[in-house]
Amino acid sequence: MKIEQLIEQIQKKQSFLCIGLDTDLDKIPAHLLSEEDPIFAFNKAIIEATHHLCVAYKPNTAFYEAYGIKGWSALEKTINYLNENYPEIFTIADAKRGDIGNTSTRYAKAFFEELGFDSVTVAPYMGKDSVEPFLAFENKHTILLALTSNQGAYDYQTNMVDGIELYKKVLQVSQAYQNSKNLMYVVGATKASYLADIRKIIPNSFLLVPGVGAQGGSLKEVCHFGMNKQIGLLVNSSRGIIYASNTIDFAKEATVKAEELQQQMAEELQSMR
Amino acid sequence: MKIEQLIEQIQKKQSFLCIGLDTDLDKIPAHLLSEEDPIFAFNKAIIEATHHLCVAYKPNTAFYEAYGIKGWSALEKTINYLNENYPEIFTIADAKRGDIGNTSTRYAKAFFEELGFDSVTVAPYMGKDSVEPFLAFENKHTILLALTSNQGAYDYQTNMVDGIELYKKVLQVSQAYQNSKNLMYVVGATKASYLADIRKIIPNSFLLVPGVGAQGGSLKEVCHFGMNKQIGLLVNSSRGIIYASNTIDFAKEATVKAEELQQQMAEELQSMR
Repeated sequence: MKIEQLIEQIQKKQSFLCIGLDTDLDKIPAHLLSEEDPIFAFNKAIIEATHHLCVAYKPNTAFYEAYGIKGWSALEKTINYLNENYPEIFTIADAKRGDIGNTSTRYAKAFFEELGFDSVTVAPYMGKDSVEPFLAFENKHTILLALTSNQGAYDYQTNMVDGIELYKKVLQVSQAYQNSKNLMYVVGATKASYLADIRKIIPNSFLLVPGVGAQGGSLKEVCHFGMNKQIGLLVNSSRGIIYASNTIDFAKEATVKAEELQQQMAEELQSMR
Repeated sequence: MKIEQLIEQIQKKQSFLCIGLDTDLDKIPAHLLSEEDPIFAFNKAIIEATHHLCVAYKPNTAFYEAYGIKGWSALEKTINYLNENYPEIFTIADAKRGDIGNTSTRYAKAFFEELGFDSVTVAPYMGKDSVEPFLAFENKHTILLALTSNQGAYDYQTNMVDGIELYKKVLQVSQAYQNSKNLMYVVGATKASYLADIRKIIPNSFLLVPGVGAQGGSLKEVCHFGMNKQIGLLVNSSRGIIYASNTIDFAKEATVKAEELQQQMAEELQSMR
């Protein structure tokens, strides 16, 4: 997907909501467990209930891999369902991959070609030749981890290197990678005030912002510090929406929660004009 | 697997060779392509030809994911084959995973429980709460990326933080993680001279050393700087062994190449006494 299509969708839906499909058999409504593929049945119901309110879906691969082949199959069905029914929606494989050159190319093929995602999250630790293979794919997007939303982010990401924090160096250095126009970045909402500094380094890039809601981040702050002329934000919510209820009404409750966030986003988009 | 069992196997086989199963349909012998599962057929033949010469196998998950469900199924068959026929062999899922706490637990379950690997490689960027969930599994091993064998290693890993290189900080900080006894580390052989410094920080940990052979590292140097009282080394070779030939004789040629390395390793083990 071209970035312009994503921006157009954001304007049209008045939403920059990404919904995380972290589907867990221990948390989905019990009545779905008798389905042939409960994971896919759940995802499909969530998608049907929320696709008009969000612009992106983000399955986290860990939740699928934990169920082996059955899980991988559910992931494949989910991305196929999205691509067939809602091709305008941006899809993110939250996989946090990264390896030496020829191996990263394999991961890129897995997510961009074999599964058909628009984007994949990638870890920066192995440097340039572990990231550039992902960037070589046209109209596909590589979402590099910069500043994550967990406590462990302070272990290394905020360490000072060459006079700046490591995550800022990741932003700077990666901007010089070949095809860096295909880069987006993960920046946790729990550290929203950091966004002002981040925008000085990467004014134009899209940011994927996890951690709003369950992890405590504020949408207002994220918008205040992180929004740019092209919006430049995808704000993710997972558990707050998909597990809003675990009864027969789970999809309806997911709509309610997604709508709440979409409304807040619409207000932010209006006030930004 | 307990670490003592790995050491016992090294002594018995006089080898600390790990064979990387980076199985690529474009590189395996053409006659295997008509098999029902060419990837597994290749892996099985390589395992049969080399299991007496090595102590570990390391499938890189990227190569399997690139083929979707078929690939994941071949990975499952491979690990099942190893666990059923050669339970004494140490198995490594080279997956370079890592995510926030509850998600890392999912990855750990995927590789340790669902697939049944003895170990998995993990990226350090997200810090403590992304690594400790892996360490919580008893008799399972978490192989943390420290200093990788690629050029991009110099992008961040060798940056100075708090007066030491980032990869050394990763070694130090991770040693304080809960259950750090379950940690091993990836240290590239192309940087063998770094091993002396590394051993000052982690004298007792096992190191997984890629980059001998195809990537240019020297086995002699790795042993000189990296070996400890418990050997403490797993030296990996992938392409040099599994793609030694792509004719009908590929398995025989793999035996020859694995034997060459095993012989060199036996010499190093002898000279160390």
